[in-house]
Amino acid sequence: MKMSAGVEWALHCCTVLSTATAPVPAHRLAELHGVSRTYLAKHLQALSKAGLIHAVEGRDGGYELSRPAAEVTVYDVVRAVDGPEAAFRCTEIRQQGPLPATGEACKVPCGIAKVMATAERAWRDSLRGVTIGDLAATVDTNLPGTWDSVRHWLGAGTASEPVR
Amino acid sequence: MKMSAGVEWALHCCTVLSTATAPVPAHRLAELHGVSRTYLAKHLQALSKAGLIHAVEGRDGGYELSRPAAEVTVYDVVRAVDGPEAAFRCTEIRQQGPLPATGEACKVPCGIAKVMATAERAWRDSLRGVTIGDLAATVDTNLPGTWDSVRHWLGAGTASEPVR
Ligand code: FES
Ligand code: FES
Repeated sequence: MKMSAGVEWALHCCTVLSTATAPVPAHRLAELHGVSRTYLAKHLQALSKAGLIHAVEGRDGGYELSRPAAEVTVYDVVRAVDGPEAAFRCTEIRQQGPLPATGEACKVPCGIAKVMATAERAWRDSLRGVTIGDLAATVDTNLPGTWDSVRHWLGAGTASEPVR
Repeated sequence: MKMSAGVEWALHCCTVLSTATAPVPAHRLAELHGVSRTYLAKHLQALSKAGLIHAVEGRDGGYELSRPAAEVTVYDVVRAVDGPEAAFRCTEIRQQGPLPATGEACKVPCGIAKVMATAERAWRDSLRGVTIGDLAATVDTNLPGTWDSVRHWLGAGTASEPVR
């Protein structure tokens, strides 16, 4: 099973945005994470398209979270970047071969597909139970002072570059 | 998030093997599922390599489960075919950029990675809670007579083709 590598960047970016005191330009987010702006742009666009962040225009513009961090779950971010599709995709192989399941039998999902879906629900529920606000708090518990440093570093940036 | 398509085939094959009264040649498993033998071979090899099934040689040979179906979990099969790697892979981006986490801080996993790992554990635990025996029972509850038909069809096969 494989997830888009963008999820790690997106979660880190959202956590930073949740603690920033002003909108953060995309190039500053990229710089802070040591990654190219082009690479990050794609994931920021996905977050923006999902309505989780938005760009504030103008001299002091940049990205900010669209909702309070306590109302953005980790699953919201994962879904925005990695897509809503289930990892296990049933291709109805039970309908193939010399003894195909037909008619009534196919109105309910295959028992195997159901078990796989239940497991993915458990995964989703787990990610829905944690918010970006929780993540930010965890980082600051593990590494006290992190957000102060980040806010200080962000404050030292110039607003002369474009927002996106 | 994406899982190998082989998982669906492997789970269906293991469920069939759990209800068969004799070893099933690979070409009969392929035929029963309406898929090419070459395609299925790869997944059967993965199951075999993981010790979940093994080939019985000889005229009436074929594959059989290596353990009772009640002792093979859905997760065992998923792991054999899809691999043991986590879907979310932390690349330690916290160590990049102008404010890298260093030293002591990096001895514990990043809070974000922990949340992702917890969710995957929930997924695995869910799949570990269901066995191939359970799957076979579910299919027969939803579609009574399925395994009788399958056993009958398998019994009507010839043993003249090679086992693998
Ligand atoms: S037919 Fe798709 S999982 Fe059974
Ligand atoms: S450094 Fe990898 S998830 Fe935070």
